[in-house]
Amino acid sequence: MRQASTILSFETPGRGVTEITRTLAGWLAETGLSEGLLTLLCRHTSASLLIQENAAREVRTDLADWLDRLAPEGRHYAHDDEGPDDMPAHLKAVLTGVTLQIPVIGGRMALGTWQGIYLAEHRAMPHHRQIAVHLIGE
Amino acid sequence: MRQASTILSFETPGRGVTEITRTLAGWLAETGLSEGLLTLLCRHTSASLLIQENAAREVRTDLADWLDRLAPEGRHYAHDDEGPDDMPAHLKAVLTGVTLQIPVIGGRMALGTWQGIYLAEHRAMPHHRQIAVHLIGE
Amino acid sequence: MRQASTILSFETPGRGVTEITRTLAGWLAETGLSEGLLTLLCRHTSASLLIQENAAREVRTDLADWLDRLAPEGRHYAHDDEGPDDMPAHLKAVLTGVTLQIPVIGGRMALGTWQGIYLAEHRAMPHHRQIAVHLIGE
Repeated sequence: MRQASTILSFETPGRGVTEITRTLAGWLAETGLSEGLLTLLCRHTSASLLIQENAAREVRTDLADWLDRLAPEGRHYAHDDEGPDDMPAHLKAVLTGVTLQIPVIGGRMALGTWQGIYLAEHRAMPHHRQIAVHLIGE
Repeated sequence: MRQASTILSFETPGRGVTEITRTLAGWLAETGLSEGLLTLLCRHTSASLLIQENAAREVRTDLADWLDRLAPEGRHYAHDDEGPDDMPAHLKAVLTGVTLQIPVIGGRMALGTWQGIYLAEHRAMPHHRQIAVHLIGE
Repeated sequence: MRQASTILSFETPGRGVTEITRTLAGWLAETGLSEGLLTLLCRHTSASLLIQENAAREVRTDLADWLDRLAPEGRHYAHDDEGPDDMPAHLKAVLTGVTLQIPVIGGRMALGTWQGIYLAEHRAMPHHRQIAVHLIGE
């Protein structure tokens, strides 16, 4: 049994999701482990991680719009000194979550056919984001 | 230290939650491991996993109704080619999440007295659903 | 490779979040493991776990207010025999989630600079809460 870990960096284009499945699969292949558990932690409080549909692009648009409706910008937040998009970004990060775990079976992440792993940027502007990645297995 | 993994299949009756705690406990017992970490990944984008109250049935009804209010059907979604219940189902899966981790201590999942593990079906019709299950421990 | 696990207890002051990062770091240090995976499970259905901003206190106030708006008290719940704050508390626990995983790298939890780990109490009154903690690594 063996472990591997790293910090991966991503540049986001601002509000919306970026698929990171392929980057993770590449790192996984480099470790040489074929059975185990992959864990991801987004190291930010206004970006997050989620697993969703990798086929229809409209699903991602609808998702971003829905998050805007659930956590709208507005004058009702006490925390407003980092811009109107900041507090909604924290709330969206809480709703979607910052950690994910994926079993690795037969050398591959055990995702379903239509599942992709996404880094969700909740701030309006582009950001540099880090994800801590951990793998334990053999 | 040792690992075990499998893909478990479930038939859901359509919208609502199905308790899977007993099935998981049965699989756990078969592995013979008594201390470790159990990880679940729902391999779908319109079904999900959650841990909730296993006593009062009304909690599950209220939960389904609340999810309907937060992610209602409607004509405002761009993704509408798989039926009116499809995009709300994706949103509910994002809100509730598709991965769960449960420490195993003394041969049992370390759940609280009132906690059960549920597979949440967010589509209106019955579906065949798969959960990837991973255990590492000794 | 080695495992450690425990059940940690916390007294919450009622509705709101309590930071538990330092308690977890203390337990982690006692285990003597420096590379691994830390898993937390909140053993309740009306309290939960989340990772959020540890600097601006207003973020936590805004978060609690937002959860109140998404899951308000009211007469529309079927489950109402444990008080008006009970069913909203279950819903907030589903939204925020009861499990968290944090990679441990170089002897420390791989959290971002502004991230803290919080136990979220969703009931109005103070409660005694338990978190199952598991660590695997070396």
